[in-house]
Parts: sequence; C-alpha cells; structure tokens
Amino acid sequence: MNDATTTVQELKSRVLAFAREREWEQFHAPKNLSMALAAEAAELMEHFLWATSEASREVVKDSAKRAKIAEELADIVIYSLEFANVSGLDVAAAIEAKMAANAKKYPVEKARGRADKYTEL
Amino acid sequence: MNDATTTVQELKSRVLAFAREREWEQFHAPKNLSMALAAEAAELMEHFLWATSEASREVVKDSAKRAKIAEELADIVIYSLEFANVSGLDVAAAIEAKMAANAKKYPVEKARGRADKYTEL
Amino acid sequence: MNDATTTVQELKSRVLAFAREREWEQFHAPKNLSMALAAEAAELMEHFLWATSEASREVVKDSAKRAKIAEELADIVIYSLEFANVSGLDVAAAIEAKMAANAKKYPVEKARGRADKYTEL
Amino acid sequence: MNDATTTVQELKSRVLAFAREREWEQFHAPKNLSMALAAEAAELMEHFLWATSEASREVVKDSAKRAKIAEELADIVIYSLEFANVSGLDVAAAIEAKMAANAKKYPVEKARGRADKYTEL
Repeated sequence: MNDATTTVQELKSRVLAFAREREWEQFHAPKNLSMALAAEAAELMEHFLWATSEASREVVKDSAKRAKIAEELADIVIYSLEFANVSGLDVAAAIEAKMAANAKKYPVEKARGRADKYTEL
Repeated sequence: MNDATTTVQELKSRVLAFAREREWEQFHAPKNLSMALAAEAAELMEHFLWATSEASREVVKDSAKRAKIAEELADIVIYSLEFANVSGLDVAAAIEAKMAANAKKYPVEKARGRADKYTEL
Repeated sequence: MNDATTTVQELKSRVLAFAREREWEQFHAPKNLSMALAAEAAELMEHFLWATSEASREVVKDSAKRAKIAEELADIVIYSLEFANVSGLDVAAAIEAKMAANAKKYPVEKARGRADKYTEL
Repeated sequence: MNDATTTVQELKSRVLAFAREREWEQFHAPKNLSMALAAEAAELMEHFLWATSEASREVVKDSAKRAKIAEELADIVIYSLEFANVSGLDVAAAIEAKMAANAKKYPVEKARGRADKYTEL
C-alpha cells in the first residue's frame, strides 16, 4: 500500500476489520480511543524532547530512529481512523471543512511567514 | 471530498500546499508538529473527560458536539499528514507495516475479546 | 520524605539540584519541559486506556501496577516543579489563585454532583 | 500560600476539600483524572508550539502570557494532587524514590551535559 493509490476508506476498512476480528469493538469507545490516540501522539513527541526544532529535522532522517518514528505515526493514524469508524465520521470531508475554515482564519496575505494565532494576526 | 474516493496523497498535497502558501514550512519542524499533534489529540480527549466509556458513544452522536469533535479529528489528521510531508514518510505503507506487526503481536485466537497488552496475553 | 512534612520548596530544590549537577539546565527550556511533562502524563494515562472509569479505581490498588503508577506520577510532578524552577513560578501561590478562580466558576450550590463545564451550569 | 511554607499535604487537603464539597469524587476516577491531567499538560504546551526552545525562555517572562502559564501549571499540579488523593499515594515519597532511581540511571559523571536517554549513555 502507498499514499498515492490508497484511499482513506481502504485504510479505515483495514483498521475496522482488524478490530472486529479480535472482538475489540467493545473496548473501542470514543473516550478510550481518544486516550490511546493521545498516548501515541506523546510517544511520537518523545523522540524530540531535548532536540531543538531545527535538529529535529535531522532526527527523522536517522535511519534507526526513522523506523520507530514511522511506527508511532502509523499508530496515531490507525487510532484516528478507528475513531472515525466508531463515530461514523468521514475524515476527508472533515479535513476539507476544517481547511476551508482555516483558510478564512489565516488569509495568505496576513498569515504569510507568521506563526501567530489567528486572534493575534 | 470523501473517504471513499480520496487518496492519502491528495490529502497530503492539500495540507502541504496550505502550509507552503503561508510560508509556514519554517515552523513545521518535526518537533513542533509532534507537539501540535499531541495538543490537538488532547482537545479531542477533552470532550470525554468525565463521561464513562459507554456514555462517550452517545457524546459523538450529539449534534452540537459532533461538529466540534469532527474538527478536532480533522486537526489531528492534518498535523499527522504534515508530519509525514516534512519527514518524507508514506502513511499507508507505515500503517500496512504496523498492522502486520500488530497481527503477529495479537494473534486472533489469543487476543479475541481481550484488552490486555501483548506482553500479558 | 512524605507529604505531611515536606514543603513544595524542598521538592523544588531537590529537583533543581539534580538538574544542575548534571548541567541539564541548558536542555530545560520551558518548551522542552512542557513536552516532557505531557509525555509523562500520557504514560500515566496508558495504565487506564481500556479499563472503565470505575475499574480504574481497582487498577491503582493492584500492587504490581501501583508501583509503576507512583513512578509516572512522580515524573509528572518532578517536571512540573522543574518547569516552575526555570520559569520562576510559585506553585502554591498559583494553585491558591487558580482555586479561588475555580470556586467562582463552580459555586457549590450550582456545581454539586455535576461534571458540566462552568459555561454549561 | 507560597512554596517555602506550604507542605504537599496542605495542598492535597485543599484540593480534596474542593472536590468533596462539590460531590465530585464520583467523577474523579484515576482514569478520568489522568485524562484531565494530560489535557492540562497539553494546554501548557500550546504556549510554546511554534517558538524555539530558546525563545520559550522569553515566553514565560511575557507578563500577559505568564499569568496564563501559571494557571495551566496550577491545573496540572491540582490534578496530580487529586490523583494522589484518590489513589492514596504519597507524592513526596514517590518523588524521593524516583529521584534515587534516576540518580542510578544517570550518574553525574556520565550524564553531565548530555540529553541522551540512560540506555544510550
């Protein structure tokens, strides 16, 4: 599988099948999945705790660390997709809507080159 | 856009274009993106803090909350995709590899109906 | 040391001495400490991912898990105190101020027995 | 109240009284408190997302932001203490034990000036 040819639905279906086969849907309440997701996000973050932001660009190129980082990212997206599965949410539609809202909050001419929150632009 | 017809790459490209247009790549170091991702995961979790796991299945059906929850989920996936963009990672390939590893850790016959960690199965 | 006789300052001083001895103050920027704190909070949470809220009251009594849980909690408070050290914040004063604000947001007669956010009381 | 004269137990008792008065102990299962703690840790982190580590040392001096940061830190410690309350843990004892373990993992001569994990020293 690769990003160029794989739809979000194909990934969602795989993740759902994995959980169903193991009868894990009983544990996959939105509350529990949101916790698992946050826990995985923290594990990704742990790779970068003491590096500067600039140095973190090199950390992801380190071949030993890169494999671990890819695993943490996979875990995050897996839990995100399973959350969407159990909640009946369409991820692509949600992203499209959120990016349209973000585009209004952060118009190009105002936001260019600035990391400020939209309330401070 | 919807999950059935949208590839991961299409979403990645949208997210990257949004950041490039605003010259935000300078801020999008892996360290910073991992923090933003964890912060958004926490915002999703906040919707379920005091509900029981079972009750959280109803929270996601509440129409007012549902829209907010979809937004938080979108934010999480957006940052995940941007993390993949700046790190040059293929999300679908990483998920496929991780799920193959998980299938070995959690064989169906052992893991069925159990929430235990693989080290305790 | 125990909670009954140990002041917050005694703990802060211990934590600071540990970092200074190892010349770690260079790494202890508020950004990095806030990440480490969030990562430790996630590790604490991992003990309760798939348990119901009620069942989690038993998890903390399990003798094997209890020792690990105490360690995670210690890590969280250690990083909180070091954050206060490097930022020059007084934790007890901050807590007193925050609890006074919380008491206004959540008056006893309105908040009794309810988990709702103050904006919904 | 201030750190020099306030014991951990005094803070714990205040936090417990606040929860009891509102009959919130029913919501304060370890699972829920660990989530609330992680959510507050993420809020602290949000102040530093796009700043470099060095720049974050200035963020905490900014008078407008400083007050908010102190509030987030207070929330984290409040939830940590309430977690200790409901779990019957002694925070100072846990910190003393954890720091003794850390001192063995990170001996001064090996760890000086290095941010590496103990497994890599």
